[in-house]
Amino acid sequence: MPVGLAAPDSLAPVAGVRLSSGNAGLKPAAHDMLLIEMCETAIAAGVFTRNAYCAAPVTIAKSHLSETGNARALLINAGNANAGTGEEGYNNALALCRTVAQTLNISENSVLPFSTGVIGEQLPCEKMTPAVAGLAATLKADNWLAAAQAIMTTDIVAKGISDGCMVDGCGISVTGISKGSGMIHPDMATMLAFVATDAVVEESALNELLREIADRTFNCITVDGDTSTNDSCIFIASGVAENNALNPQHPDWQAFASMMERVALHLAHAIIRDGEGATRFVQVTVSGAASTADCKTIAYTVALSPLVKTALFAGDPNLGRILAAIGRSPVADIQMNRVSLHLGDLPVVINGEPSAEYDEPTAAQIMAADDVQIKITVGAGDSTATVWTTDLSYDYVRINAEYRS
Amino acid sequence: MPVGLAAPDSLAPVAGVRLSSGNAGLKPAAHDMLLIEMCETAIAAGVFTRNAYCAAPVTIAKSHLSETGNARALLINAGNANAGTGEEGYNNALALCRTVAQTLNISENSVLPFSTGVIGEQLPCEKMTPAVAGLAATLKADNWLAAAQAIMTTDIVAKGISDGCMVDGCGISVTGISKGSGMIHPDMATMLAFVATDAVVEESALNELLREIADRTFNCITVDGDTSTNDSCIFIASGVAENNALNPQHPDWQAFASMMERVALHLAHAIIRDGEGATRFVQVTVSGAASTADCKTIAYTVALSPLVKTALFAGDPNLGRILAAIGRSPVADIQMNRVSLHLGDLPVVINGEPSAEYDEPTAAQIMAADDVQIKITVGAGDSTATVWTTDLSYDYVRINAEYRS
Repeated sequence: MPVGLAAPDSLAPVAGVRLSSGNAGLKPAAHDMLLIEMCETAIAAGVFTRNAYCAAPVTIAKSHLSETGNARALLINAGNANAGTGEEGYNNALALCRTVAQTLNISENSVLPFSTGVIGEQLPCEKMTPAVAGLAATLKADNWLAAAQAIMTTDIVAKGISDGCMVDGCGISVTGISKGSGMIHPDMATMLAFVATDAVVEESALNELLREIADRTFNCITVDGDTSTNDSCIFIASGVAENNALNPQHPDWQAFASMMERVALHLAHAIIRDGEGATRFVQVTVSGAASTADCKTIAYTVALSPLVKTALFAGDPNLGRILAAIGRSPVADIQMNRVSLHLGDLPVVINGEPSAEYDEPTAAQIMAADDVQIKITVGAGDSTATVWTTDLSYDYVRINAEYRS
Repeated sequence: MPVGLAAPDSLAPVAGVRLSSGNAGLKPAAHDMLLIEMCETAIAAGVFTRNAYCAAPVTIAKSHLSETGNARALLINAGNANAGTGEEGYNNALALCRTVAQTLNISENSVLPFSTGVIGEQLPCEKMTPAVAGLAATLKADNWLAAAQAIMTTDIVAKGISDGCMVDGCGISVTGISKGSGMIHPDMATMLAFVATDAVVEESALNELLREIADRTFNCITVDGDTSTNDSCIFIASGVAENNALNPQHPDWQAFASMMERVALHLAHAIIRDGEGATRFVQVTVSGAASTADCKTIAYTVALSPLVKTALFAGDPNLGRILAAIGRSPVADIQMNRVSLHLGDLPVVINGEPSAEYDEPTAAQIMAADDVQIKITVGAGDSTATVWTTDLSYDYVRINAEYRS
């Protein structure tokens, strides 16, 4: 079961955005296709997997976004990742964009395609193409919860959140949904997140904000270090609210940026809390390396260590493993006699020496909780970074070893 | 059970080298201390863990070796790694070297200490110091098999091999032993390998040979990417044989170097075959990247991917996972349309396109064998590298999640 996470009871509509989902037969019983339509004033920004083996829809979504910031529709399917499918897969995704464009009477390059599911099988276009008209006919604003369910693959719970802030005295709203549960599920190709606000935002500001926020949220989570062929995160600003266009000089920019980051962080954490086989939600913070990148490298080395992860699964404060992972981190000049380690608030090692305040029963209690915090300082600078991960359990192996079927 | 590996029936003595093992009470029933004594003409070379959090004995062995190439004794214990033990641990290891030196009447810096076992506990010197005299009194040449058993921690089988070659018309012999089964066991701190020959070898030649061979053997194996605080590999040349001193210009150098590499490769593979929870022995070969380092980086990214490893455990030819791991390898400019993948001899992908010769039942058969070969070409150069690894099984999680006891 997810660690401290339940599906949202409800998600708020966002003016200028309508959604519709349905079953096109890619998955047995659940909804597996989602159409999101945005009004004419909407703009979008995206970040995508850096995996060289990326899926056809990623290539097309990137290319369409670069041609026009004015995305008008997103077509998303679960059950098939359209990855590793070569030229045929590319043409299939493009043909689906064309169908959506014709149905909604918008340009082909204002449609962005997204797929998640099994790798290496062609999209069943003969099922998907006829489903588009039905989706277009049932678009409505108050449909986010169904949308969150429609993009699930092996996720246990739907993931989404709504929030708000004031800009120029107007109430601004935001709703976001995400999916993903392990970087690639059995062969599920994985993380998707869609966040929409009704605010008016300048395109370059939205783009930059997405990149900054993704670096502190979606790019700071890891289950197993494997990156997916399909990872995508899209920010949409419908521009329907009556605020003055937002950019970093706007007096309410910080309120807006914070709201967007809260939503992204919730969605990112939700992916980890529903991580494959997760029994713990683990936060690793590294401070005091020479750069943020070094902090992140050390944090990821700890977060991805199978030995640290199995100790977390066991709830065993086997802290030599954390120190050994720090010691092998590929950053220059780690001086172990300047390294300090806290488990929650309990000092474990201070400047390389065992802390007198450490006691094992307290450590065992901290390690066995749902949420575990590992805090590391390395005494070589003043940067900091935080990443989030899961433990490594029998269920992770079971889920990922099960034969594709 | 180890994958295609049994303990050796016997191991040949090496002239100039005597060994003795016994139980000093660090482990319940088995031998846990080993003394290796070398004659006056012996030289030694060592490679050690690069982990910044290295154990006290590693620091001392490196320092002693740099002070004198003429190591005369190795003192090895299992059951306690003497890692994470601060200044007290350092002084303990030094005191044990002094005891060995006094007992054998040799200089303190000609004694090299090695420890393997639990991290974070002080050595029980009160048990170990009195045991040294008994070990010294029972040294004999024909004791390698007992030595291989004495350095086991959670290894299932003892690991060792003997070999030979002709140099200047003399028969040269070599025997090597190793231990390790996962980079750090529950908290066992891990890989040790000792290889001794009776050949006369120039010190700089032995040093360089060890480094070259380690890079193609011990530095090419991985269970989980975690490196140990105690990893050490020592080459000893006792110099008792009657050959002319070996260096790369010697006409029989190649025969000697090949013999040493065969032994190192066997010992390295044995560690993987006895890897934690291993059910398969997996060879990943990458050719055609711009450098050997790039080939090794790609090979390790595949070998360490939890998704690839769980697919290997399942015997499931879930080959998108291998391609996705190649795609995220941190090397510059991977062009997936130049990547080819073979599973054993079966073509899977040729220049980025699915091979017409691929068939799933054959692939499933190859993936479910004890020994699996994954061959990758990336079409960007003519370097090549091979690494060896295990799958990721329930037993890996079980072994590493078991509470320290």
